[in-house]
Amino acid sequence: MSPAAGPLGLIAGGGQMPLRVIAAARAAGREVFAVVVEGWGDPEDFRHVPHVVVRVGAGGYAIEQFRAHGVRQVVMCGRAQRPSLLAVRPDAGMAKMLLRIGKAAFQGDDGLLKAAVRVLEEDGFEVLPSQAIVRDALPEPGLLSAAAPDARAREDIRRGIAVVRALGMVDVGQCAVVQQGLVLGVEAIEGTDALLARCAGLRRDTPDGQRDGVLVKLVKPGQDRRVDLPTIGPVTVAGAAAAGLAGIAIEAGGTIVVDRPATVAAADAAGLFLIALRPEELTPTETNP
Amino acid sequence: MSPAAGPLGLIAGGGQMPLRVIAAARAAGREVFAVVVEGWGDPEDFRHVPHVVVRVGAGGYAIEQFRAHGVRQVVMCGRAQRPSLLAVRPDAGMAKMLLRIGKAAFQGDDGLLKAAVRVLEEDGFEVLPSQAIVRDALPEPGLLSAAAPDARAREDIRRGIAVVRALGMVDVGQCAVVQQGLVLGVEAIEGTDALLARCAGLRRDTPDGQRDGVLVKLVKPGQDRRVDLPTIGPVTVAGAAAAGLAGIAIEAGGTIVVDRPATVAAADAAGLFLIALRPEELTPTETNP
Repeated sequence: MSPAAGPLGLIAGGGQMPLRVIAAARAAGREVFAVVVEGWGDPEDFRHVPHVVVRVGAGGYAIEQFRAHGVRQVVMCGRAQRPSLLAVRPDAGMAKMLLRIGKAAFQGDDGLLKAAVRVLEEDGFEVLPSQAIVRDALPEPGLLSAAAPDARAREDIRRGIAVVRALGMVDVGQCAVVQQGLVLGVEAIEGTDALLARCAGLRRDTPDGQRDGVLVKLVKPGQDRRVDLPTIGPVTVAGAAAAGLAGIAIEAGGTIVVDRPATVAAADAAGLFLIALRPEELTPTETNP
Repeated sequence: MSPAAGPLGLIAGGGQMPLRVIAAARAAGREVFAVVVEGWGDPEDFRHVPHVVVRVGAGGYAIEQFRAHGVRQVVMCGRAQRPSLLAVRPDAGMAKMLLRIGKAAFQGDDGLLKAAVRVLEEDGFEVLPSQAIVRDALPEPGLLSAAAPDARAREDIRRGIAVVRALGMVDVGQCAVVQQGLVLGVEAIEGTDALLARCAGLRRDTPDGQRDGVLVKLVKPGQDRRVDLPTIGPVTVAGAAAAGLAGIAIEAGGTIVVDRPATVAAADAAGLFLIALRPEELTPTETNP
């Protein structure tokens, strides 16, 4: 992180997290050179930062650009889509990378991200987690909100943990919505916002429209914690509130809270709980009736 | 199944399967007395059959009605929603049942169905699977359609099997959609039609809009095979076609094909494959890249 390390390289997808990385790096006196992935990040957000917009297949060009700008450490973050081999249209450098990696790059949710990390490391870059730059992104265990989960919500959290872990074992999704012990929805590639939107229409009625149900969002077993950690933010809170949920449970030290003050404020304004749980607390109970 | 067994009792949810049961029973010379669950089945569909419409909480009344009509064997089938305790508003008989069963009736996808089977059996009824009446509902292993899965589709089927089994272990959903090794969606309580509808917007582009990807729909491990078997029909085929999928894989002897001639005809008209796989063929491969 010393100036000797050169500018921080940033491979930027969508959402707020890449912008938080830029702000935190600059606050610490470090310049950033960003590779904005076309169709994922909005170049307009990066207009005050040295950057280049690169299509997802132009991995060779991205690495040349990092080298030309003296980048030696790279952070990858932000929302990504998983492209098809067809959509990638690899440039010469990327084609070589894909040959090295093979079809693993197109398998599972994380294939391409894991492949990108491997290529960057083999090419001599150090891949840093975004949370090494944005220090408050990963909450310690504990309650972040004013509201706390009641006994029923804790039951739903336990069921959600069992489900998300089962999904994670087959490398799918990171979250589930549970209400009254019933799994309303599980996430694949549609993203958490879409999951919450559909669960709003699937929830059971409660007396006087009382909030209940939880969103559980955890790290996958075996996930590379330097890239693609599960993320929540104010939009997630708004989605959970609109779905009538009582709160959100995340993995302490594993789920990124993008803009923590704004996220907690949104939860408090809506009366939702937001809790970060220790992995050792995340013990699934028997789930079959 | 002899006339001595009295009329067949039918607890009917939504969709075509209850109507197929009625047609098959009558073709075999047996009368049917139906309990149509309010909000699940459409009473209009049952106007030519002796029946009573009963709300989901009136389990006590339903059992009285079966007794009054000499029913000793019962089939439960059709689409069901999982009600909240609040929505159930149990009658006196149902309240006694719920006390006997406890909160297990409201846990997991299958809690209430399993509870209903237990109550019926304890009350001296025999619970028959719908496939005992509709003989061609459960296909043997093999290809049902003209089209067959290619190597890529077989890969997607293998991945889908691993995902659906992992979900089934935590008593969630019965199906998943996989395209090019990527899990586009997994089912919780939204149902297969809703799953297919959202996957249409999540699929990767293919050259010339070529079909690819599969819907995999299997029996949950430990599922009571007398009730709530996974079901497909012509509407499922239409949804899979609209989502651009190449085909559908089901569990031989486990997934009900509601109207087999119409379902196969729909698959053939759309150029989709429809294959029933033997459990021993359903061997998950390593899915993490």
